Amino acid sequence: MQVYKAPLRDMRFVLHELHGSAELTALEGQGELSADLIDDVLEQAANFTETVLLPLNASGDLEGCHYENGVVRTPQGFRQAYDAFREAGWNAAASDPAYGGQGLPASVYKLVEEMICSSNLSFGLYPGLTHGAYLALRSHGSQELKDAWLPKMVEGRWSGTMCLTEPHCGTDLGLLRTRAIPQGDGSYSITGSKIFISAGEHDLTENIVHLVLARLPDAPKGIKGISLFLVPKFLQDADGNPGPRNGVSCSGIEHKMGIKASATCQINFDAAKGWLIGEPHKGMRAMFTMMNSERVSVGTQGLGVAEAAYQAAVAYARERLQGRSLAGAKYPDRPADPIIVHPDVRRMLMTARAYTEGCRALCGWVARALDEHELSPDQQIRTAAEDRVALMTPIVKALFTDLGFEVANLAVQTYGGHGYIREHGVEQYVRDARIAQIYEGTNGVQALDLVGRKMSSNFGRPLRSFFHPVLAFIDANLEDEALADFIGPLAKSFGTLQQATAHIAANGLRDPEEAGAAATDYLRLFGLVALGYMWARMAKIAVGKRETAGADAAFYEAKLVTARFYMERLLPQTGALWSAIRSGKASTMALGEDRF
Amino acid sequence: MQVYKAPLRDMRFVLHELHGSAELTALEGQGELSADLIDDVLEQAANFTETVLLPLNASGDLEGCHYENGVVRTPQGFRQAYDAFREAGWNAAASDPAYGGQGLPASVYKLVEEMICSSNLSFGLYPGLTHGAYLALRSHGSQELKDAWLPKMVEGRWSGTMCLTEPHCGTDLGLLRTRAIPQGDGSYSITGSKIFISAGEHDLTENIVHLVLARLPDAPKGIKGISLFLVPKFLQDADGNPGPRNGVSCSGIEHKMGIKASATCQINFDAAKGWLIGEPHKGMRAMFTMMNSERVSVGTQGLGVAEAAYQAAVAYARERLQGRSLAGAKYPDRPADPIIVHPDVRRMLMTARAYTEGCRALCGWVARALDEHELSPDQQIRTAAEDRVALMTPIVKALFTDLGFEVANLAVQTYGGHGYIREHGVEQYVRDARIAQIYEGTNGVQALDLVGRKMSSNFGRPLRSFFHPVLAFIDANLEDEALADFIGPLAKSFGTLQQATAHIAANGLRDPEEAGAAATDYLRLFGLVALGYMWARMAKIAVGKRETAGADAAFYEAKLVTARFYMERLLPQTGALWSAIRSGKASTMALGEDRF
Repeated sequence: MQVYKAPLRDMRFVLHELHGSAELTALEGQGELSADLIDDVLEQAANFTETVLLPLNASGDLEGCHYENGVVRTPQGFRQAYDAFREAGWNAAASDPAYGGQGLPASVYKLVEEMICSSNLSFGLYPGLTHGAYLALRSHGSQELKDAWLPKMVEGRWSGTMCLTEPHCGTDLGLLRTRAIPQGDGSYSITGSKIFISAGEHDLTENIVHLVLARLPDAPKGIKGISLFLVPKFLQDADGNPGPRNGVSCSGIEHKMGIKASATCQINFDAAKGWLIGEPHKGMRAMFTMMNSERVSVGTQGLGVAEAAYQAAVAYARERLQGRSLAGAKYPDRPADPIIVHPDVRRMLMTARAYTEGCRALCGWVARALDEHELSPDQQIRTAAEDRVALMTPIVKALFTDLGFEVANLAVQTYGGHGYIREHGVEQYVRDARIAQIYEGTNGVQALDLVGRKMSSNFGRPLRSFFHPVLAFIDANLEDEALADFIGPLAKSFGTLQQATAHIAANGLRDPEEAGAAATDYLRLFGLVALGYMWARMAKIAVGKRETAGADAAFYEAKLVTARFYMERLLPQTGALWSAIRSGKASTMALGEDRF
Repeated sequence: MQVYKAPLRDMRFVLHELHGSAELTALEGQGELSADLIDDVLEQAANFTETVLLPLNASGDLEGCHYENGVVRTPQGFRQAYDAFREAGWNAAASDPAYGGQGLPASVYKLVEEMICSSNLSFGLYPGLTHGAYLALRSHGSQELKDAWLPKMVEGRWSGTMCLTEPHCGTDLGLLRTRAIPQGDGSYSITGSKIFISAGEHDLTENIVHLVLARLPDAPKGIKGISLFLVPKFLQDADGNPGPRNGVSCSGIEHKMGIKASATCQINFDAAKGWLIGEPHKGMRAMFTMMNSERVSVGTQGLGVAEAAYQAAVAYARERLQGRSLAGAKYPDRPADPIIVHPDVRRMLMTARAYTEGCRALCGWVARALDEHELSPDQQIRTAAEDRVALMTPIVKALFTDLGFEVANLAVQTYGGHGYIREHGVEQYVRDARIAQIYEGTNGVQALDLVGRKMSSNFGRPLRSFFHPVLAFIDANLEDEALADFIGPLAKSFGTLQQATAHIAANGLRDPEEAGAAATDYLRLFGLVALGYMWARMAKIAVGKRETAGADAAFYEAKLVTARFYMERLLPQTGALWSAIRSGKASTMALGEDRF
């Protein structure tokens, strides 16, 4: 049996105390957002995910999706759960009120997303992909297209996909072959085959709106000749309801390691009718609107699975009796002590906890930037926020999913043999979490995005959106003795990050392969320092509040213990990463291709 | 399609060049062992594993084992493969000639085991468990029991198991409840339930010989009241053939994350007839004979999967075309370059390679000690070898399986989305490798064995079996400029290991929880230094041979590149581990159990 209770206390801490949710009311359309309203949303989401989505997580994994003659059926209960999800308004929660959305800011909705991912990652992909498609269409589509398609997508009656990958190309979309021929009436005829299309076909919605990358006849070669099209499963009839079937079919679903309740489809477009989104040959730009949002969401998937796995590990560590405490029996009346008394089990739980809470805090920081970029009335704030989102997106995506996988594995290890079998549901977390390191750009691609694009764009301006606040925080708290155990390690690792950044900037300019060879280690180094920054800030709040917090004092004490664990036990990885980076590309690149 | 070719060149290097196989002839019964004979065995094993076992690996995973009314069927083809395995003499290869074995030393047979694990981990468990049971019975059983049961086990006609775990106890066997009542005729009546019994029931052999831990009526409480019994599925008839069914039944098999073709059984003993192995209440000692051997074998499983996963990753990285080299197109005539040109892909391949070859070298070093302990005519050598085996067993088990899992995941990452689906068979490596970190004592338990038992036993004598040769090697080569890039990092990390050892010895003596909190980080630190020692020794050989090696020069050049990669990119982890160790237990232990 899987267990999960939304970590509402920690979520409120991140949102209200760490990132000051009161400031959100300064954003456009958020004037009435109050802490009470936010807490109410979080509680409703907790209730929904705990009671509706969680019970379908293991059964959905076991049953998987069914494919027959082009039709895909989701596992038992998914359809009812989706209807309930839609009726409760969750599809519309984070969308623009102009199209029927409720306009909840990302700062709040990312926490809802986390709960969805904790309770049922596979389920979350259906509305998740729709929201990504909504974003691309809203940002780049014509008003006519938006009016015709967005309201039903926001409502959740129709779902969305992103159709990028083809059998011979994923990362390198410049190779794609799907073609679009103008029909003279403003529409296009789309033909080609796509694979790995999440939610490409299913039985949850009346219609499916595919966003498809394809080439126009006059397209330049490579990545600069790709356009984005809206291609629905059913064309609309005169009343805007699903009408005739379009030339879109599903030829199969993948048998995957995990997320088995999410239909991963092969989709064929056979002279399917579609409409151009945005300008010809500028499809990648439009698709990136969707992809950037999706990348932060995929990071949230890592966080969500980590939280669920952590809770599972804690539950088992409290209940499983094996051996005695090394400090003498703690529960002499029982046949053995619960394994939570053992230092090595605690090492696993504390690691899981420190990563999970750290990622939640960092996610909140990035979500705030997403909101400010979108909704701030102040241009300067919007630009600064855009920089922070650009910089942190690959870090959130790759770091959170790597750590999510690590935490899921720590949970399995805590269970021992019982973690390896289906019964307790923890091995599912490992299998489910694994995909998040791969899709929406592998974590290696994220690292290249960080060192190759984000680091150098606008003369390093995005970097400053992280470096400046960290420096300011360190400077402001350097003299505070109560924080010395947190500021010291943060300052040291931040110095390492600065060195590594300068090293890669210099050497990467001279030889891009130097940056490439350093990329993954650098992203992890950066991410660990970012978590360190969050932990130091959280420690500062906890130090300030613990003595006056009354019944809540234990919460702040736990924050301090976990912050200390992070600084002492996890952040030192940064030194090893810097050593690896510093050694340069030579040993990575020297071996002849035929010698492997 | 899974691919695998036994790495015979590297195996010969490890056996003949690194560990000087010629010295094996000095061991009892090994006088006729020659390099030619060894190479012949390895080639036969390569052929068998590549052509018979590999083709059943993915199909066995897909089909899994079948359970119906107490009967377990292995997947299609396993029975024929097992018959062929037995007929080719592989069951008997590493066993005592006194019972029909071929007496192959561990130095050779561990390489055969590696090939079996690379090609089909699930299959390997059936003969693997039999060999473990053989070892315990041979070391501790009465001559009568040995004569009655060993020959058929050695031949592979009958298989073996180890029945330790019960639903409420795994690590803490002191809690076990299975009972053994003396029957007055030298036999015992065994009653109890065991779980997680690999090869507990199946259709590969005529009989199954269970080694069962149980309590005698007068047994002291806890771990000191456990005895070991031989309990066969079928009792022998007057001719020594399988006769009446014993009170042993299989009530189900587990649904696992991986190793699906290995039957993991719930076994009930219902007044089953059994015989005591060794002395009453000394069952743990006898079981540890089996378990220690199994632990090195489980380490070999990690190595075996790592090799297969590495080869899969290389094959895909050469064939998959995506993007262009950062140094400019390498294959301008193709639509894109193969992904092996990308530094981040090479990072994954080089990491996999450095770990895999390093583990193979270290496995050879430990296997040699296994052989010397068993077969050396010189008491002093036997004792030294026993120390090394004792010290290195938990390291081989935990480090190799952790790295095997890491490498399997690097392979999936190299494949991207194609790694997450069943088709290429690489996600199976992740699922299969995961169990090896858990069974035969979780890796956390291995770490506790290292710091709690191995470090302090005999006044630190086992530690010296590693420290002395490493020190001697460093001293002897410190001045060799050609080796500076290898000896320098080795010496530095070795110094760190010495500091960490002294730290844990001192603090662990004062407070065992200090040692417990440091254990896992210390084991990894130790293991990485041990691999560093192997890489430095391999580099020394390569430096000596590369210029005169002719066609083989490229092999030695590759060794040097990989050694350098290991020293520069992987060994620096040791610094971070030492930082974590040094911080002590406080932050790990401070949080109240109810605060998690």
